[in-house]
Parts: sequence; structure tokens; C-alpha cells
Amino acid sequence: MRNLRIVVVNTIIAAGEEDDLVLQGQAARAEALRVGLLEAGYDIVASLPADMYLPERIAQLQPDMIIIDAESDARDVLEHIVMATRDERRPIVMFTQSEDTASMDAAMAAGVTAYIVAGLQSERIKPVLNVALARFKQEQKLLSELHDTRHKLAERKVIERAKGLLMARHQLSEDLAYQKLRNLAMNKNLKLSEVAQRLLDVEDLLG
Amino acid sequence: MRNLRIVVVNTIIAAGEEDDLVLQGQAARAEALRVGLLEAGYDIVASLPADMYLPERIAQLQPDMIIIDAESDARDVLEHIVMATRDERRPIVMFTQSEDTASMDAAMAAGVTAYIVAGLQSERIKPVLNVALARFKQEQKLLSELHDTRHKLAERKVIERAKGLLMARHQLSEDLAYQKLRNLAMNKNLKLSEVAQRLLDVEDLLG
Repeated sequence: MRNLRIVVVNTIIAAGEEDDLVLQGQAARAEALRVGLLEAGYDIVASLPADMYLPERIAQLQPDMIIIDAESDARDVLEHIVMATRDERRPIVMFTQSEDTASMDAAMAAGVTAYIVAGLQSERIKPVLNVALARFKQEQKLLSELHDTRHKLAERKVIERAKGLLMARHQLSEDLAYQKLRNLAMNKNLKLSEVAQRLLDVEDLLG
Repeated sequence: MRNLRIVVVNTIIAAGEEDDLVLQGQAARAEALRVGLLEAGYDIVASLPADMYLPERIAQLQPDMIIIDAESDARDVLEHIVMATRDERRPIVMFTQSEDTASMDAAMAAGVTAYIVAGLQSERIKPVLNVALARFKQEQKLLSELHDTRHKLAERKVIERAKGLLMARHQLSEDLAYQKLRNLAMNKNLKLSEVAQRLLDVEDLLG
């Protein structure tokens, strides 16, 4: 199995903070994370700031996992990460110093897979990332089930509305309206819900 | 806010193992967990073995959270925990020594909220449990959305089938069949889907 490809996202450091104590601590932690990841056999494909270019970079790099190394609550980081994984979800592990429960809630809502407070010891990196992967798989299963169920419900509504339309327009029985929909779908090589949607679109257009 | 009420579940210790080194390590970890929880201000309402009585005890105690203190992969523990939280989900935090990814997958599938490998340091207990609570809230939201969507889909299917039945039986148009269902529901003070289900049940009975 090839190594996991990881993108590390750092919080943006404000100008003028360069000789700050906080900054020194942050640099030390970033280095410890880097070493820990490499020792555990992961590939760090990039280390990026959390800015507006992040979504594009993530889309280019297609990492297996995103690790956020954040000093504090990192709302701005989360915002960029949400944008960057909106179309394609990825496991996100967040190492942070913030024990604030509002930050935790925000991180969970933003889709963070694992949130680790002040818990960065290099020998623990591997199990932490493995747990995050297992969690991510489980979450994806749940989300895809939710997506499928929503989709079926939506399809069913569209088909019903189209059937009702046909019944009213052409004075058809429910059975005949349904058969007409099916025939249209087969002739056009479309799904029943697609034909139904097109009928409704035309109706909207023509009033 | 009152303290979080916690039930700690221990792996069952086999007879004859009493003077084992593994056992000593386990006892030391259990004690560290107990002290860490109390120092962090949690209430340990019970410390229970993972056996067939667990579901009943959990139902009686109604803890806010379940902590599993497991030596190894603990399949048997998970089984009892799944039974104990099947009807009412609760946050489950699992401290374990097992880095095996199959165990992680099994734990996630069983509904474990947080899985912490060899990571028990008393000063980290509070943030770990807070993250688990935030995670649990998020998961509950997702699960309840899935539940609602499934329910709506199921209701819609039942209503459609009942409507079809009325149309066929009484040669009604779709509109009239729907009105008949609505009237029945209003008269009986039932939901549309409940009336529909009753109609289908009667049909099944009478053939």
C-alpha cells in the first residue's frame, strides 16, 4: 500500500508577530508534526497557509488527508477548509491548542473528522490518523445513505407531480399517466425522474 | 451545570489471570482513569463489567456518557455496548491499547464516538471528553436527519399504495382517492400515513 499523501494547513501568521513567543511555540509544534509524520511513514505533499487559494491547491494535489495545525479556534482556517472539501470530502484532522467547546462544535459542524487538543506526541500520530480514517469511512457511509434517501424522496416527488400533471392535462387515469411516463423514459433512454423533471420544466416554461 | 454522569465499562478479567503482568497494567490504567475523571470533575456513577447485564444497568443508570476501558480489541465489550445503546444512543469513549485498524473499524461501526489509543493522560481527559460530546451532537443531528428522511420516504410509499388501492377498489380518480384519505384521517384524528397504513393492513387481512 502506498503512503498516505498529506497536506498540512497552517494558520496564517500576522505580520509583526515574527518574534513573538506564541510564534516560536507554533514553529516548534509545526516542526514536531512534520517530523512525526515523516517518521510514521506519511508523505507530506505540501504545507499550505489557509487562504483563498487553498481550495484550488487541494483540488490539484488531491491529498488523502488534510491536517490542520492551528494555534487557536481558527475560524478563518475552517472556512477555507470547508470551501476546499465541499465538493469532495476528505478526512480532516485538526491539532489545536483550543479547549473552547464552541470551537469544537464549529469544527465538527465544518466536517472535521478528528479534533485533537494539545495532544501532539509523535508516537501517537499514527493511531490518531488511523482512527480518523476509520471515522471518515463510517461518516461517508452515513452521509451517502442520507444522500441516497434524500435523492429517492426528491425523485418520488417529481414523478408524482409529473403524473398529476399528465392526469390533469390529458384526463388520464393514474395508471395510464404512469405508463405514459414510462414509455417516454424508455423512448428517450432517460430515468423516470428525468422525464418527469423535463415535463415539469416545460410546464413551467409554458405556464 | 451539573457534572457529567459517567459509567465506566471494564473488560472482563478471566479467572487465573489475577497475578498476570497484563492485569497489573490494566489495574493501574483503570485507577489512573478513575482519578483523572474525578479530578476533572466528572461523576462516576458506576464501574461495570461488560456482560449481559450491561444493557439493563445502563437503562437504569441513564449515564450521560459511557467510557470503555479496554485492554485489547474488545469485540465482546462492543457487542454488549451496542445492545445497551441500541434504543437510546449515548456518547461512547473507548480507551484502548489496540492499534489494529480492524478493531477501529469495528468500534466505529458499533457507534463508538471517540477511540483513543494508548492516550490516557489525566490532563487530557477533559478535552477528549468534550470533543466526544461535540462529535456525538453532530452525529445525532446527522442520524436524526437520516431517520426523518427515511420516514418521509416510507410514509410517502404507504400513502401512494393506499391511494392506488382506493382508486382501484372504488374506481376513483387520484384526486378523489386522496380526498377520501384526507377525510378519513381528519375524522379519525390520524396522520395521513397512519390511515393509509390501516387501509393496507385491512386489505392484507381480507386478501
